[in-house]
Amino acid sequence: MIFRQLYEPLSSTYTYLLGDEDTGQAILIDPVIATMDRDLAEVHRLGLDLVYTVDTHIHADHITAALEMKRAVGSKIAAPAFDRLPCVDVGLEEGTPLQVAGITLHPLHTPGHTDGHFAYLFNEQVFTGDALLIDGCGRTDFQNGDADALYKSVRQKLFSLPDDTLVYPAHDYKECFVSSIAQEKKRNPRLGEDITLEEFKVIMSNLNLPYPKFIDYAVPGNRQCGVCPDDLPDNLASYCRQMTQSPQG
Amino acid sequence: MIFRQLYEPLSSTYTYLLGDEDTGQAILIDPVIATMDRDLAEVHRLGLDLVYTVDTHIHADHITAALEMKRAVGSKIAAPAFDRLPCVDVGLEEGTPLQVAGITLHPLHTPGHTDGHFAYLFNEQVFTGDALLIDGCGRTDFQNGDADALYKSVRQKLFSLPDDTLVYPAHDYKECFVSSIAQEKKRNPRLGEDITLEEFKVIMSNLNLPYPKFIDYAVPGNRQCGVCPDDLPDNLASYCRQMTQSPQG
Repeated sequence: MIFRQLYEPLSSTYTYLLGDEDTGQAILIDPVIATMDRDLAEVHRLGLDLVYTVDTHIHADHITAALEMKRAVGSKIAAPAFDRLPCVDVGLEEGTPLQVAGITLHPLHTPGHTDGHFAYLFNEQVFTGDALLIDGCGRTDFQNGDADALYKSVRQKLFSLPDDTLVYPAHDYKECFVSSIAQEKKRNPRLGEDITLEEFKVIMSNLNLPYPKFIDYAVPGNRQCGVCPDDLPDNLASYCRQMTQSPQG
Repeated sequence: MIFRQLYEPLSSTYTYLLGDEDTGQAILIDPVIATMDRDLAEVHRLGLDLVYTVDTHIHADHITAALEMKRAVGSKIAAPAFDRLPCVDVGLEEGTPLQVAGITLHPLHTPGHTDGHFAYLFNEQVFTGDALLIDGCGRTDFQNGDADALYKSVRQKLFSLPDDTLVYPAHDYKECFVSSIAQEKKRNPRLGEDITLEEFKVIMSNLNLPYPKFIDYAVPGNRQCGVCPDDLPDNLASYCRQMTQSPQG
């Protein structure tokens, strides 16, 4: 099995490439429009065909590459059925795995960052999106975010996975790349095992985060599976479209 | 493939269990005498037979369980050939993999913490012993330690592994469990890509670490593949032998 962790530096997003060596079929989890050329080149370099893009949720900080990749290479768009986006080819639900050659993704409904958020379990790896970050978690103050729901998603669902399960988040802002369920249980300062629900709610309500600079463009753009809106100010148009080279190459 | 990361809290040591599901054969990397009952129970619980114990180096902070496990369940003792220990059944050398059923360990000579130190590469995982820790490294002031050699081992040998290779160290003191080569290149404050050899040597020479409290007993004990010396003071005898339950269970 081929695995690559790719990085989009403008939004500090991790995109994950899973490829089946026997059939050459591949999927990308949370691809970003800014790095789609880099990511498609990596798929091609490895001799793979992109069969699906899979999003964990409707992102607020970047534009998904799902639609542009479909146009470029014919990949199908998979995303949570919960969000009922007309542009999605395959709506994912918990209990119904997405099977691509030897790759079996198990969708786990993990609301709280957004109400339609899903994580995906693949063997001993879990792609946690913005529900569980390394030493952190996604914010809960937009997109029907809900601290109670996020606490339950992480503590009851993700923390019930085996301790050695590798945690691959959708973002990291401190150059961490990977964690494990055991590590997050021990160390996560928001959701670790010694934090109560009441403590978590206080933490989340006191974050004092700024209004997300891109959310008013990203959410409608991502509800269309990845469109850079026409009315973007110049600085955000660049942010949306810029074809950067990842520092990871 | 079965994988378990086990923890010995007195010396903050990670022991790794690798098991081949098809044959039931298993190995333990860096087992600790204090947790041998716990570890053998885990091997048994998983329906496995322990075929080898494998040490990364002659430890100075704990006693290996290699000899006691051999006595208990007949496992063979594998360790670096470099150290020429008469009690070792299989001396490991770079270029000659250790094959146990479907498990292939590739020994990588990584001197610097000790001169005979080896890391072991297993598919996309590398067990780095004390050469490379998460955000750190082992000390270089005993057992023919050598900062120049350690820098070369990490920067030229371990950092030449693919970025997504998972780093599983022999110790952690801050409740970190796993890292990756990419993460250590970016974040390791001693050996990250932006640190020069001269800077590393200054860091290592200014650590001002205390004399290792157990080294005078552990090194001769481990040169016999794991013997608690008869002349241990009471407090260290307890440290050597104590059968603890790991907080990881």
